[in-house]
Amino acid sequence: MAKVHLLFRKEDIDETALANHKIAVVFDILLATSTITAALSFGAKTVIPAVSGLEAKEHARLLPNDSYELVGEYEGRTIGGFHSPAPLSLKDISEGKTIVLSTTNGTVAIRKAMAASHLYVGSLLNGQALARHICRHHETETIVAICAGSSGRFCLEDFYGAGYFIACLLMNGISLNDLSDSAAAAFLFYQQYRTVSSGRTILKSAGVGRWLMAHGLESDIDYISEQGTTSVIPLFQKTKWGGEITDVTRRSFSL
Amino acid sequence: MAKVHLLFRKEDIDETALANHKIAVVFDILLATSTITAALSFGAKTVIPAVSGLEAKEHARLLPNDSYELVGEYEGRTIGGFHSPAPLSLKDISEGKTIVLSTTNGTVAIRKAMAASHLYVGSLLNGQALARHICRHHETETIVAICAGSSGRFCLEDFYGAGYFIACLLMNGISLNDLSDSAAAAFLFYQQYRTVSSGRTILKSAGVGRWLMAHGLESDIDYISEQGTTSVIPLFQKTKWGGEITDVTRRSFSL
Repeated sequence: MAKVHLLFRKEDIDETALANHKIAVVFDILLATSTITAALSFGAKTVIPAVSGLEAKEHARLLPNDSYELVGEYEGRTIGGFHSPAPLSLKDISEGKTIVLSTTNGTVAIRKAMAASHLYVGSLLNGQALARHICRHHETETIVAICAGSSGRFCLEDFYGAGYFIACLLMNGISLNDLSDSAAAAFLFYQQYRTVSSGRTILKSAGVGRWLMAHGLESDIDYISEQGTTSVIPLFQKTKWGGEITDVTRRSFSL
Repeated sequence: MAKVHLLFRKEDIDETALANHKIAVVFDILLATSTITAALSFGAKTVIPAVSGLEAKEHARLLPNDSYELVGEYEGRTIGGFHSPAPLSLKDISEGKTIVLSTTNGTVAIRKAMAASHLYVGSLLNGQALARHICRHHETETIVAICAGSSGRFCLEDFYGAGYFIACLLMNGISLNDLSDSAAAAFLFYQQYRTVSSGRTILKSAGVGRWLMAHGLESDIDYISEQGTTSVIPLFQKTKWGGEITDVTRRSFSL
């Protein structure tokens, strides 16, 4: 049976260890990994995670005109010429598009974890479907839940989101004894604050949550804090220029 | 008012940042920092934290015969010629003695944190007295709770112990808004498992706890999981050969 481990910050990623047949799931609940899940659920064809605005523009230059949207922020400010990465703002622009996304933490964490044998993107929105998919397809590998954090610091909302995902793993056959101490801490934490309204309070009281609230993004936090509302399974796949994230479920349907 | 931050592992210590007027409190609940608190409460004169068995022996050579006891483990095994660091085993040998202590994680974490302007040793046993003392004597400095962890990995019991200490800080005038996300996570975690019996279950279910249980140390865990039973305030002070830990309360009485 799979073992489950948790990293508190992207800076704790050991790329060599991940390369050794690990299943990685990245959580940047406010905002990037919720944004990616949402964009795919809004009909985006694919999401390209870039490590900087410059890299995002370079990727975009390779794409046909009108096939993509540039989305991103750096240190909390929307990059000039890009759309805001607040998920609700992507509702009407995602359908059929490639979203080229650059964020300070989440997309950087995803790229740092790309050595994993399979790399997924997690959020509260898709935790249940993701856990079911991973338990079904990766029965023996170690699962590493990676909290992105913010500029080197731990973020409470990522710990909460990873805790929800681990709680969903437990409902799909993983045992408490398979959790490392860090994974157990996130699960035991989530378990005590598991209602959507408690989770919402946690997200709004966290450092990044308070900053987003002060910048008028309360309705995005309300949206992000819904648990298990979408069955999107965002999977990262390497490409020659970095990688792209697609929804595994949709891909299977189109086969 | 003081700010409170938490580090998940001794490997996350930034010695330069600590040197900038930080108050550090180290937690290695199973066992070193509980052992130090216990030894001082059993009447030990001072505890010398060594980073290895070899260094402990070198320190001991500088002390008068019969004035000290060598105590320590490396990777869970008692060092040859040393006493076990299980706290209850020190009950009858500590009175008036210098305890020279070497452990795999706790004493190493203490020495790694010695750049702090004040460095304390925390446990469940003394969390309440320690929080009161720190709030009284360090009103404006940032407090950094350091979870020692085990060989680079996060330990659930340290997170729980630090959470108890932070809960005690809140009872002594620190506000929730003064906690970093990591400190808030530990507090919110502790708050849901705050009874002694819940804490005991957490300690026994953690990785190190399970190992200690398998090695017959359940009664030591039972002892360690008592909350706020001693008013010992262990303070580290630099010496020319490293440092020593004494009980601040006893020192004040003897002045």
